[in-house]
Amino acid sequence: MKPSIDRASIVTLDQHDPLRTKRDAFVLPDGVIYLVGNSLGPVPKAALRELKIAAEQEWGEDLIRSWNGAGWFDLPATLGDRIARLIGAAPGETVITDTTSLNIYKAIHAGLNLRPGRSVIVAEGAGFPTDIYMTEGVASVRPDMRIRLEGVDAPRIEDLLSDDVAVVLVNHVDYRTGVLRDMAALTGCIHGAGAIAIWDLCHSAGALKVDLNADGADFAVGCTYKYLSGGPGAPAFVFAARRHHGKLSQPLTGWWGHASPFAFDRSFRAGDGVRPMLCGTQPILSMRALAGALEVWDDVDLDQLREKSLGLTDLFIALVEEGCGPFGVTLAAPRERTMRGSQVSFRHPHGYEIMQALIDRGVIGDFRSPDYMRFGFAPLYLSYADVYAAATILHDILANNTWRASRFANRGRVT
Amino acid sequence: MKPSIDRASIVTLDQHDPLRTKRDAFVLPDGVIYLVGNSLGPVPKAALRELKIAAEQEWGEDLIRSWNGAGWFDLPATLGDRIARLIGAAPGETVITDTTSLNIYKAIHAGLNLRPGRSVIVAEGAGFPTDIYMTEGVASVRPDMRIRLEGVDAPRIEDLLSDDVAVVLVNHVDYRTGVLRDMAALTGCIHGAGAIAIWDLCHSAGALKVDLNADGADFAVGCTYKYLSGGPGAPAFVFAARRHHGKLSQPLTGWWGHASPFAFDRSFRAGDGVRPMLCGTQPILSMRALAGALEVWDDVDLDQLREKSLGLTDLFIALVEEGCGPFGVTLAAPRERTMRGSQVSFRHPHGYEIMQALIDRGVIGDFRSPDYMRFGFAPLYLSYADVYAAATILHDILANNTWRASRFANRGRVT
Repeated sequence: MKPSIDRASIVTLDQHDPLRTKRDAFVLPDGVIYLVGNSLGPVPKAALRELKIAAEQEWGEDLIRSWNGAGWFDLPATLGDRIARLIGAAPGETVITDTTSLNIYKAIHAGLNLRPGRSVIVAEGAGFPTDIYMTEGVASVRPDMRIRLEGVDAPRIEDLLSDDVAVVLVNHVDYRTGVLRDMAALTGCIHGAGAIAIWDLCHSAGALKVDLNADGADFAVGCTYKYLSGGPGAPAFVFAARRHHGKLSQPLTGWWGHASPFAFDRSFRAGDGVRPMLCGTQPILSMRALAGALEVWDDVDLDQLREKSLGLTDLFIALVEEGCGPFGVTLAAPRERTMRGSQVSFRHPHGYEIMQALIDRGVIGDFRSPDYMRFGFAPLYLSYADVYAAATILHDILANNTWRASRFANRGRVT
Repeated sequence: MKPSIDRASIVTLDQHDPLRTKRDAFVLPDGVIYLVGNSLGPVPKAALRELKIAAEQEWGEDLIRSWNGAGWFDLPATLGDRIARLIGAAPGETVITDTTSLNIYKAIHAGLNLRPGRSVIVAEGAGFPTDIYMTEGVASVRPDMRIRLEGVDAPRIEDLLSDDVAVVLVNHVDYRTGVLRDMAALTGCIHGAGAIAIWDLCHSAGALKVDLNADGADFAVGCTYKYLSGGPGAPAFVFAARRHHGKLSQPLTGWWGHASPFAFDRSFRAGDGVRPMLCGTQPILSMRALAGALEVWDDVDLDQLREKSLGLTDLFIALVEEGCGPFGVTLAAPRERTMRGSQVSFRHPHGYEIMQALIDRGVIGDFRSPDYMRFGFAPLYLSYADVYAAATILHDILANNTWRASRFANRGRVT
């Protein structure tokens, strides 16, 4: 491949990258270009450190005292406030707890309870499946509600809005294509119909600048194990805008959401602020690893993050289209920057085999049915040189047909 | 104190303890007699080892591949089967997932869905609060259901049963008093009324021999961070008897409970077996620590476990009643072995201050309102000598009134 972008300009890009030193905060295996940080982020060194302290000192030595002494009990709130800046939330609006699936269930119920008398939940037909499944779960206990799906009942969310819509659940970035929605504009439409907007940030938190309050979001959920590198299956977050505090109710009324969890009352009374979104006792070891991971983020400038993300994805799109387009690879991500998340997908009829060949060469992306090769670009630890090398290897695989020999099945299983 | 039980007989008890070598499997802080293993179990050395492997190798080096390669995705089922023997479940009936609170919510819903047309949920008025709170949560989305509480609507569960009862949620061991219920007898009564029996094993799993299938239980839930030493907030378990498989439904229908989680279907289809009790992506680091903890249990004879538990609690009751009874300490646990869990509570009007004085002397128990001093006896790492020392220190504190000087507030916060 003789791309129009030469290696010298790549070196310059890396030299001028204000985030280049962040790479040292992570453990990255040798010989790997890791482009699935949008699925499972790599280990931050601080996460290993905190996990060791949590296990050996807090659990091992201090034992039960750590619930107070090490702040375990307050981790959902304290870590929620650490994430707040990254998603445009104010302090006290976010908690880390449970899973994205469960937080979707809570947020939809809370939204419905804020809009009594309305009868429709709107979601995406092509959203991440668990979003739909949890919506169905809510509807199973709310027979008065019905679900309208984008792409099934109408082409666009906007076409599904009417004055009977209570809640709209929508992804900020599409997990397959990387398409970024305009949060402010769509939230405005949703509010125009009098409905509640719940944003799923799984593929945008830590990938770009999210501004929930500026954009008017009512609720948001998201995971911490993708771009935020909180660890496999790390607890998720849920945001509830302050204007709804005092009116939050959802049926997973566990003791951590109680106004006085240690009074051992006989009946549930919801805590204040965002606390009613909590439920049961949280997995502290996973929480403490996440605490370490968030240290890496505390001084990250989100404008720099976004600019680098766009720089990396611009470069990958340009290199792959130029070098691999002739081999039938087509872009399945937005060319326009304003519509692009921090991932790029390309399609090819043999995308699965090509992805296996890439993985064999140390370029770890993943495959999504039917023919999407998905590449995530986490700005904190990837360089422009990584992008150049990945595109070069992809070209090499296509030019030499090495993908036809790929025999390994290695589907990335968790998005 | 000159107890009728002398030190020599204590030494003999320890010498003949078939579980005495298990103590080496745990990290126990120096100078501490740890009697809150019923709240947070200490660290098993194998848990530290597995946590390190999970963080440094599986997450750090193998990254996304570990979802398959390290069996992460299957941990709910594989660890569920590890716990199965301890609770009298068959393979395939138990999964480790989420929290006890959430599993209660799922189990009650699943029970209600097995008993359509019935209108009552029975629970304990003095059960662990989250059990009641989650029951209220279910009722909040099932306005056709009402709740009857033991101790409020009638003195005993048995008095609350009638042909309109769909589900009964009951604790195997009371968290304050340590009273053990007769699972077979009460399940028989519940089934006699045509209702579904859900057992909360939080204070019995790993504390005594539980035999869910022999006793006819329909569902069970429980935590893994007390007697099982799985780590702070370690994921909980949920059991569903095989006879209900194929008919399990509950509204937390996340993608891990789907029949084909990687098909990315647009609509939820419940998986087979116990899988419909799963929901979202689990906290793998906490799960892997639990995997290490369960190694310690794999060769434990549960009859030996129970016999030692009763031996330890018999001894503690005898020593404290003899030595401390004159100072106003009264037993709040069953004297009868068949009704006793693996914890002993004593009451004293100044129980709170006395507990602080005990903690200052390295005897870690906890306090439960209004006046319960609670002591847990985990048979794997406690010796008869520990029990003797704890009782001696308690006597000393009372005889010398040192509790009056106790200034430290150190309430164990999580039961």
